Amino acid sequence: MLNNGRNRVIIENVKPEIDAGRFPSKRAVGEKVVVLADVFADGHDAVFAQLLYKKQTDGGWKEIPMKFLENDRWQGEFTVKELGIYFYTIEGWVDHFLTWRKDIKKKFDADQNIKVDLLSGVELVEAAANRAKGEDANALSEFAETIKNEKDFAAAVEVALSRGLLALVEKYPDKRFATRYDKELAVVVDREKARFSAWYERFPRSCSPKPGKHGTFKDCEAILPEIARMGFDVFYLPPIHPIGKINRKGKNNSPATKPDDVGSPWAIGSDEGGHKAIHPQLGTLEDFQRLVKKAQDHGVEIAMDLAYQCAPDHPYVKEHPEWFKKRPDGTIQYAENPPKKYQDIFPINFESEDWEALWQELKSVVEFWIGHGVRIFRVDNPHTKAFPFWKWMIGEIKRDYPETIFLSEAFTRPKVMYRLAKLGFTQSYTYFTWRNTKKEFTDYLTELTQTEVSEFFRPNFWPNTPDILPEHLQFGGRPAFMLRLVLAATLSSNYGIYGPAFELCVSEALPGKEEYLNSEKFELKNWDWNQEGNLRDFIARVNKIRKENPALHATQNLKFYEVDNDHLLFYGKATEDLSNIILVVVNLEPFRAHSGWLKVPIGEFGIDFKQAYLVHDLLSDDKYFWQGELNYVELNPQILPAQIFRLRKRLKREMDFDYFM
Amino acid sequence: MLNNGRNRVIIENVKPEIDAGRFPSKRAVGEKVVVLADVFADGHDAVFAQLLYKKQTDGGWKEIPMKFLENDRWQGEFTVKELGIYFYTIEGWVDHFLTWRKDIKKKFDADQNIKVDLLSGVELVEAAANRAKGEDANALSEFAETIKNEKDFAAAVEVALSRGLLALVEKYPDKRFATRYDKELAVVVDREKARFSAWYERFPRSCSPKPGKHGTFKDCEAILPEIARMGFDVFYLPPIHPIGKINRKGKNNSPATKPDDVGSPWAIGSDEGGHKAIHPQLGTLEDFQRLVKKAQDHGVEIAMDLAYQCAPDHPYVKEHPEWFKKRPDGTIQYAENPPKKYQDIFPINFESEDWEALWQELKSVVEFWIGHGVRIFRVDNPHTKAFPFWKWMIGEIKRDYPETIFLSEAFTRPKVMYRLAKLGFTQSYTYFTWRNTKKEFTDYLTELTQTEVSEFFRPNFWPNTPDILPEHLQFGGRPAFMLRLVLAATLSSNYGIYGPAFELCVSEALPGKEEYLNSEKFELKNWDWNQEGNLRDFIARVNKIRKENPALHATQNLKFYEVDNDHLLFYGKATEDLSNIILVVVNLEPFRAHSGWLKVPIGEFGIDFKQAYLVHDLLSDDKYFWQGELNYVELNPQILPAQIFRLRKRLKREMDFDYFM
Repeated sequence: MLNNGRNRVIIENVKPEIDAGRFPSKRAVGEKVVVLADVFADGHDAVFAQLLYKKQTDGGWKEIPMKFLENDRWQGEFTVKELGIYFYTIEGWVDHFLTWRKDIKKKFDADQNIKVDLLSGVELVEAAANRAKGEDANALSEFAETIKNEKDFAAAVEVALSRGLLALVEKYPDKRFATRYDKELAVVVDREKARFSAWYERFPRSCSPKPGKHGTFKDCEAILPEIARMGFDVFYLPPIHPIGKINRKGKNNSPATKPDDVGSPWAIGSDEGGHKAIHPQLGTLEDFQRLVKKAQDHGVEIAMDLAYQCAPDHPYVKEHPEWFKKRPDGTIQYAENPPKKYQDIFPINFESEDWEALWQELKSVVEFWIGHGVRIFRVDNPHTKAFPFWKWMIGEIKRDYPETIFLSEAFTRPKVMYRLAKLGFTQSYTYFTWRNTKKEFTDYLTELTQTEVSEFFRPNFWPNTPDILPEHLQFGGRPAFMLRLVLAATLSSNYGIYGPAFELCVSEALPGKEEYLNSEKFELKNWDWNQEGNLRDFIARVNKIRKENPALHATQNLKFYEVDNDHLLFYGKATEDLSNIILVVVNLEPFRAHSGWLKVPIGEFGIDFKQAYLVHDLLSDDKYFWQGELNYVELNPQILPAQIFRLRKRLKREMDFDYFM
Repeated sequence: MLNNGRNRVIIENVKPEIDAGRFPSKRAVGEKVVVLADVFADGHDAVFAQLLYKKQTDGGWKEIPMKFLENDRWQGEFTVKELGIYFYTIEGWVDHFLTWRKDIKKKFDADQNIKVDLLSGVELVEAAANRAKGEDANALSEFAETIKNEKDFAAAVEVALSRGLLALVEKYPDKRFATRYDKELAVVVDREKARFSAWYERFPRSCSPKPGKHGTFKDCEAILPEIARMGFDVFYLPPIHPIGKINRKGKNNSPATKPDDVGSPWAIGSDEGGHKAIHPQLGTLEDFQRLVKKAQDHGVEIAMDLAYQCAPDHPYVKEHPEWFKKRPDGTIQYAENPPKKYQDIFPINFESEDWEALWQELKSVVEFWIGHGVRIFRVDNPHTKAFPFWKWMIGEIKRDYPETIFLSEAFTRPKVMYRLAKLGFTQSYTYFTWRNTKKEFTDYLTELTQTEVSEFFRPNFWPNTPDILPEHLQFGGRPAFMLRLVLAATLSSNYGIYGPAFELCVSEALPGKEEYLNSEKFELKNWDWNQEGNLRDFIARVNKIRKENPALHATQNLKFYEVDNDHLLFYGKATEDLSNIILVVVNLEPFRAHSGWLKVPIGEFGIDFKQAYLVHDLLSDDKYFWQGELNYVELNPQILPAQIFRLRKRLKREMDFDYFM
């Protein structure tokens, strides 16, 4: 038999609750957690529901009364103010006092005799007095006396129905038969950059101003001011470790290497060291730390690549051969995707018998770089490493360094990408790179922002990467680069580009592939950053708009709106208080001009049909007075393929004026 | 650190799984449980997934290989063959042999050297041989030898890629690092009547053929043949217990009682006994048992009403005053819904300190009637009794008597209705009674049949009850009763009517209410079952159609189809093998004829556009040859407001003939 047979309240259908509570949801410091639950009891008794929450390290729960919405649904919310893990759960009980108050009011209004009912109330108030202390206890006892006093019926009723009595009784609820939800749900709280960041990826070895010369961390220092001017706050470096010399790949991934080939930085490790070493041609560990420091001075953070794989000459291969798969001929298994072979890379075998030591070593790599000032890791191909490892490793690191950010570079199947996010990755690469049409954007972004996915998966949108030059950038010219930048930067609050290939609009691909011709992965580049038509100023403008408009600092506030042309994508973001409203319209076709009638959701923004409002295109600096829902736009991609409007509601006086315009 | 760091397979998003596995899903004997799950691992290794299931009382799991669908989704199924509780879960592992086989095939096709790869396979086959026994072990060793033999490469490849080897290795999988889903999910298996039943409700006291005379169980016996002829298989009796004499209600629920008023049967208990006693005017316990037995002879089962509430003179009130709420003046609290008062009924207080004894006594009521042959209980207002009680009581009863059926009469908020079903009720009353338009039916039935609700909530559709005479029956005349019957009987595989008010088309209501005028709840009735226009034959025909067509024995197979007239509702049901296909079209408006073009989903039924097919209206016995999707219907409610077609695919020979028609 049950112990709690008298606990009549049911609590179910709690949101957020990821996979039955197996995983935490995610927030950044300062964000709200809005918790919903169905809370109800049998019969018609009133129910009280409250949200309980605490930081992991707190002693007790904080209690927040929940608000009844409709259809037995209740809502409560709290704001997370510190890094780390928060927990929340829900408690509900039958509120006999509220039930009594509701009933007695109805009876009183129906002129029924409520003498005995008043006495029932006295019992409830006296019970509350017993639970209360000090002055409250006295006040409650006095209230009870007044209700009990048959000589002054009017006073008794007035007190019985008073808000003062209600508030005081609710302060000391009868929780003997309270139901506590059977799970404590977790929220991981990250720093703000987890939610809002602009990434710039660049190969340090190609940063030298001198053609043919291997770049260094010092060269990287030199370009920091421009990275900051363009508005990026994360400078992500592909692997900076020694590059394998055995089976090194030549230009364009050729298996035939020439002596001066620099190899892929993702083929990590040689006799010069492994994951904790620096490629000698880039500089020293001290140079690296200096770069980290200098970057900070420019408001830019260095992100490290974390690629758990080894070149054949990586020290691990000799020291820990048991961490790799051995073939029957005694050689170690290189990476394959038959019939393709990657002889320059040995994957780690997560089924190794020595997996515990392996996990510890892999974790120590992260700790090593944390020790040298790094707090952001872009993780290469996490979907080819065992899931349990990520859960453990990220959990361990974030326990000690909750400010750490892990970006999952998993371009793979959706379930796998989402699982990695659930396991702990802070941000994730997405399918944005291959979404082009209005329907594709609407479907995908709706999934990312309007479903449970938004609770655990923070998208980071990349128009290009060293591995991917998508078709639309190959054929769309400069307007395509501009429109993809605006889409990435305004649809998602986290985005990044691989430069300078991006801002220089590099579009030459391997024939029939979405890969760069003469990819920087396999050779040194000398970029002319001042090349005519470069997008540096345009990018700076877009990032400035992002920074100055808090509506663009979030992703899940995205809403799509109607426009009568399928080549135009129209969407908006607003802060909760509507103090910042951004509307974006993008011409998805880089080749020709398109026009259409936008349907502006003025009702959502509290704007009247008669009321004119100002829209300021922050890209072109053009301003328009619009009125009503339908407003016309025309976008010529040769000029600007997008408009980013800040909508300003006008002052009353201006509105009066409008009537005479 | 984890113990299972090498378990690389993830299992998630399992269906059915009600509320994170807190509640079982429901099936009837002979039904399938189709289980879906996302199963995947890191990297590109092949994965093997299997479904495990067992009866609660079985020792070990039965294993069923799952089938890969797409997007990492897998499916497996099993059929429940016995009453009681089944469990299922899922297991998955990385299938190294399958991975190897897939890769070696690609390499072989690409003309790569696979000498070493073959040896890797030998290791896998030898490991399987070590896990195998007897002949299988020998066969595997021989396979390994053949693959190992460098002198006959062709034979080695042939064996390596042979289905025989694959089958044998899969028989002895390497499950060292298998992942078992972290929950064992339950299915409650009921008897077939839980899924397919036709209920007839009638007050036994109104069964006497003599006007003014109180009916008896013997009178009930006399009408059994007609109940059976009409096609009902459940005869549900409102409470048959002694009726309270204190505060007894008069006709039309009047508080002023006359001496000959019979009172409401739901005001249970008097000095003549309580929930385990029989109202003396109905007969004796022996008479009741005889009725139960006689009904069985007619293929009809007696369903009892279970109303846990007491008249003021119920024996419990004296014997267990602590089971009721006491008011400050010493009286016991009667039922209220302020300002309404129900002085003839004392609700039970589930917060009683003596709740454990109370629960035991309430359970013993059910056991008492089970002891007298009853296995179906229609539970009155379960939503006004504590939820934990239902879960416990139904669980206890069904453990010992798994054939028991509990119908939840909860006309209340959706969350509450669904919760009761989750807690164990076998069938449930629904909102069908108030659904009228095409959109209302489509929305509601889609929720009931196409969502998770269908896993735990078995609807039972009632066009009327003693409490409810809905507006459309008040004003729609005989055609309204006909169309509501067809809807109830064909949309839901469980349905019932309150007779003879239904088949006699009684439509007089209390003014402005959806309640019967001169309700049988408060007075004896003498029904003229032969009244002109009665629907007994029509009902018999509909129930015969139900019985003869297995497609109508289920609810969740319902599909709505298009018709170009919003007054027509067009839907269908089919058996899984398509051997029985039923299409129903109903004119929802009882007042005038409507016509329209049905869009018959011939593709679903495997019918070609050129192929004619026979539709046989089982209500009118009319037959039609139709061809293609669009076919015309016209429904005059004064003749028949509905058509129930059986669709028959025609034989090949007939089809050839059609070309020349």
